[in-house]
Amino acid sequence: MRNIRLTVEYEGTGFSGYQFQPEDPTVQGELERALVELTGAPHRVQASGRTDAGVHALAQVVNFHTESDLPLKAFLHGVNAFLPEAIRVKSVAEMPLDFDSRRSAVRKTYLYRIYADHAPPVLMRAFTWWIYNNLDIEEMRRGASHLVGIHDFAGFRSAGCDSLTTIREITAVRVSREGNLISIEVTGSGFLRNMVRIIVGTLVEIGQGRRKAESVSELLKDCDRGKAGITAPPQGLLLKEVFYGDEPLEVYP
Amino acid sequence: MRNIRLTVEYEGTGFSGYQFQPEDPTVQGELERALVELTGAPHRVQASGRTDAGVHALAQVVNFHTESDLPLKAFLHGVNAFLPEAIRVKSVAEMPLDFDSRRSAVRKTYLYRIYADHAPPVLMRAFTWWIYNNLDIEEMRRGASHLVGIHDFAGFRSAGCDSLTTIREITAVRVSREGNLISIEVTGSGFLRNMVRIIVGTLVEIGQGRRKAESVSELLKDCDRGKAGITAPPQGLLLKEVFYGDEPLEVYP
Repeated sequence: MRNIRLTVEYEGTGFSGYQFQPEDPTVQGELERALVELTGAPHRVQASGRTDAGVHALAQVVNFHTESDLPLKAFLHGVNAFLPEAIRVKSVAEMPLDFDSRRSAVRKTYLYRIYADHAPPVLMRAFTWWIYNNLDIEEMRRGASHLVGIHDFAGFRSAGCDSLTTIREITAVRVSREGNLISIEVTGSGFLRNMVRIIVGTLVEIGQGRRKAESVSELLKDCDRGKAGITAPPQGLLLKEVFYGDEPLEVYP
Repeated sequence: MRNIRLTVEYEGTGFSGYQFQPEDPTVQGELERALVELTGAPHRVQASGRTDAGVHALAQVVNFHTESDLPLKAFLHGVNAFLPEAIRVKSVAEMPLDFDSRRSAVRKTYLYRIYADHAPPVLMRAFTWWIYNNLDIEEMRRGASHLVGIHDFAGFRSAGCDSLTTIREITAVRVSREGNLISIEVTGSGFLRNMVRIIVGTLVEIGQGRRKAESVSELLKDCDRGKAGITAPPQGLLLKEVFYGDEPLEVYP
């Protein structure tokens, strides 16, 4: 038995999210279908976490146990040959048997991109949230600074979140601008359902002057979802990197 | 009579190029249709130059003469309301009557992007040329340096190019890399048909070690298209900026 880890890039636009659904196209469904095509056997693929419909990943991490003795290289080129072009395996590793892409994850970085301009984006339209007005980046940074640390993020999760605890640690929030493009990068130990998108919605309201930067620390105390900002739309969100402590036995390439 | 200039961003993926064709979707066709919808009158739109099917523009410049007395603002928001989401007017200017987006252009910058990796790109797949092997950027820069100056580029145009003279001036070629993404930015007084894509195809062969950097100066002497590299595929190419000396009478925004 081997434990294979895949690092996967996907564009979420055409999928009903990461998680398998019998009737709809999903990233997990496509990965599992490609593995059957390649190996002839069914495999259950475990991801570092779900992403919602329309959310992208630059480097989602998944793993599966397999009896296959195919070389690592075949899991990259072979799986890619059976995937739609919106999903690609970028690298492969053989991991110790106890590695689990979800439970072993130490930290994750999400990137959210906003396009602030008087006209909508074209080339970036599938990857950004269009905001008509200009945003005050300095105020957004001030608001974001309150999020760093260990907090109860119960006010920053949507209904349907089934996490037992709502305590999470955010290690960094970086707000930057390049031309019309505003990037919000959030790194943390773990994230509640829609947490990054609610953080972004709240920071945008601060950038628009509709909410004070200090209100973020009150939101963390009140734990009331109704008081936070709107949930930013999915297409601006990208799972950028998942961090692990585990050492691979072998990697390709 | 007024002379209106539009700066337009478009994704070329779904269009049969910029230039109007009665049977196929084109950028010019969509712009002219939107102007009829907005003003009720037909307008002939002149661009700084054509782009081929699949080629994108961050800032194509077009102009048209009109009897309409709509405010400039209406030409941005009004035209955008009738355009497909792959085309957007980004800014509008009223120009002197003798301004012509093609003949008045002083200089243009094209950007070509290559994705060099063992697995194909996903998020950038509509905007890059995938090259499996790594490229020697330093050799590509050496090759590119020979292009700068006033030369006969007859060896760098495709069949069907109807330009009377093949002498052009290239003022800068910049080859840069950021992770897997290699950018080639070419600025010049004017370009022959497929010239940038043939330059890129030639530089890639240099980067792969299949051609010497010095061969570029021989290609400029020989003027033989058969000796240059392949024509790089369209989706990597982007018209980035068009430069003019003319002063607008009024701009929006």
